[in-house]
Amino acid sequence: MTSHTEQSAVTVLGLGPMGRALAGAFLDAGVRTTVWNRTPGKDRELVERGAIAAPSPEAAVAAGGLTVICVVNYDAADAIVRRDAVTDALKGRTVVNLTADTPDRARDLAAWAAEHGIGYLDGAIMTPTTTIGTPAAVFLHSGPEELYQEHRPVLDALGGTHTHLGTDIGRAAAYDIALLDIFWTAMAGYAHALAVARAEGVTARELAPFAKGIGAILPPIFEEMAEDVDSGTFSGEGNPITSAVSSMAHIVHTSEAHGIDAGVMRAAEGLARRAIGLGHETDGFMRVTEILNPR
Amino acid sequence: MTSHTEQSAVTVLGLGPMGRALAGAFLDAGVRTTVWNRTPGKDRELVERGAIAAPSPEAAVAAGGLTVICVVNYDAADAIVRRDAVTDALKGRTVVNLTADTPDRARDLAAWAAEHGIGYLDGAIMTPTTTIGTPAAVFLHSGPEELYQEHRPVLDALGGTHTHLGTDIGRAAAYDIALLDIFWTAMAGYAHALAVARAEGVTARELAPFAKGIGAILPPIFEEMAEDVDSGTFSGEGNPITSAVSSMAHIVHTSEAHGIDAGVMRAAEGLARRAIGLGHETDGFMRVTEILNPR
Repeated sequence: MTSHTEQSAVTVLGLGPMGRALAGAFLDAGVRTTVWNRTPGKDRELVERGAIAAPSPEAAVAAGGLTVICVVNYDAADAIVRRDAVTDALKGRTVVNLTADTPDRARDLAAWAAEHGIGYLDGAIMTPTTTIGTPAAVFLHSGPEELYQEHRPVLDALGGTHTHLGTDIGRAAAYDIALLDIFWTAMAGYAHALAVARAEGVTARELAPFAKGIGAILPPIFEEMAEDVDSGTFSGEGNPITSAVSSMAHIVHTSEAHGIDAGVMRAAEGLARRAIGLGHETDGFMRVTEILNPR
Repeated sequence: MTSHTEQSAVTVLGLGPMGRALAGAFLDAGVRTTVWNRTPGKDRELVERGAIAAPSPEAAVAAGGLTVICVVNYDAADAIVRRDAVTDALKGRTVVNLTADTPDRARDLAAWAAEHGIGYLDGAIMTPTTTIGTPAAVFLHSGPEELYQEHRPVLDALGGTHTHLGTDIGRAAAYDIALLDIFWTAMAGYAHALAVARAEGVTARELAPFAKGIGAILPPIFEEMAEDVDSGTFSGEGNPITSAVSSMAHIVHTSEAHGIDAGVMRAAEGLARRAIGLGHETDGFMRVTEILNPR
């Protein structure tokens, strides 16, 4: 607990699992915490731990210092803040919006905030609720640097690492989208692999130690491939995209022979075949990044 | 170098990058190594290192002990071994086929081998050519246990870890397919994420440290999810499939708003929406494994 947080106050709007975790971490750090949720009853445990329950979002905003929003998406965030009473209460204050959505929605809400004299920071939480308040939490932020520096001390009460990605307000959401893209695509691959394995008489527990091995080789490959993608040079030496396509075709064949939908892999294979069709057969698989998004 | 390998002899059929790495590792371990490749000239460096160049596959087989095959796929393997001269030479000997293909092709070739009095083991190499002969290499094997134990000493010359997965000859290929499914799907997700990030003004090098963080959380999640999948219980507590679908929809929207094909994620989202449509909205994402492959 620092002197900063002792003297600080926050309002948390939205008490879903993540909002409750955020409010709990603020309370644990000794920050005066006012809470509000659209549907009542979610604040009970937090109030027992010292939170102040506000009867309305405008009352919650007026009672606190920094306003932290964490709701299901920006439609929900808009429904809360774009009402005159709440907009008036926010005037001259700062909002940190930790709600997950798209970069364009973050830019839109930031423009609205600027019009109404409201400070606005956008953020993304990259780790599960259980990490909040611990060193394992990962927060990404974007927006005005001075606003971020001003509120950094109270944000630090949430634990973990906080990274300011720049002044472009959409940047936290852009990173969030890209990282969730990696995560959910990989999970779709794992779910499909387990279905194919089961059809071949291999249980998930049997495959898991080797699946973990595949997971473990991804981070260094991600780092190496990032260099290729930024420089636009795609070495296929030792692993050309033709070899990737051969593996993908085997996966699709085996999957569909068992009656298992292979739509995800078919889409990936289609991208790789497009790269080959465009004459990149000696390049590595990451050439598809260029195909997806020509410079 | 062990006394086993000193007295051993192998034949390597197929001298692509992986075949050359295998032959090189046998030579380094002091194993008498005979090599052959369909197109000539690939054996030059190996012969300088002590390999015996054979003029035909039947001569190569006759000169060696264990025959190791590593070619582009089973069509290529069949074209080599299913010729009378080679089949005759193989009679009473053992083949270890390290060619990558589907489990059904492995079963088919094993049936042919049994018909012709040829011992047959099937294997898969899970790591790149550069790992061969080092502790980092990972080999999976399937087929008759006693045949595997008999040839294990010479296979150990290849370095790394060797796992016998069972007597079902298709098992090594099944693991290979499932693990490549995870790998290539994850790589497709990474390529797509980098394309979306670039459209948002984020370079691959900027995203990479966080992408590595996502990669690092996959192995423990894979382990945890394997338990759920085997037991058929899919807890969505803290992360229900509806939340995954919400993230997926944001990814698709952001991607397509930039004109970037989102076919891979659309296919994954479709699976998740099917699970929700079937009433599993409070389950976790891995419920899609059941949807893909009902018991």
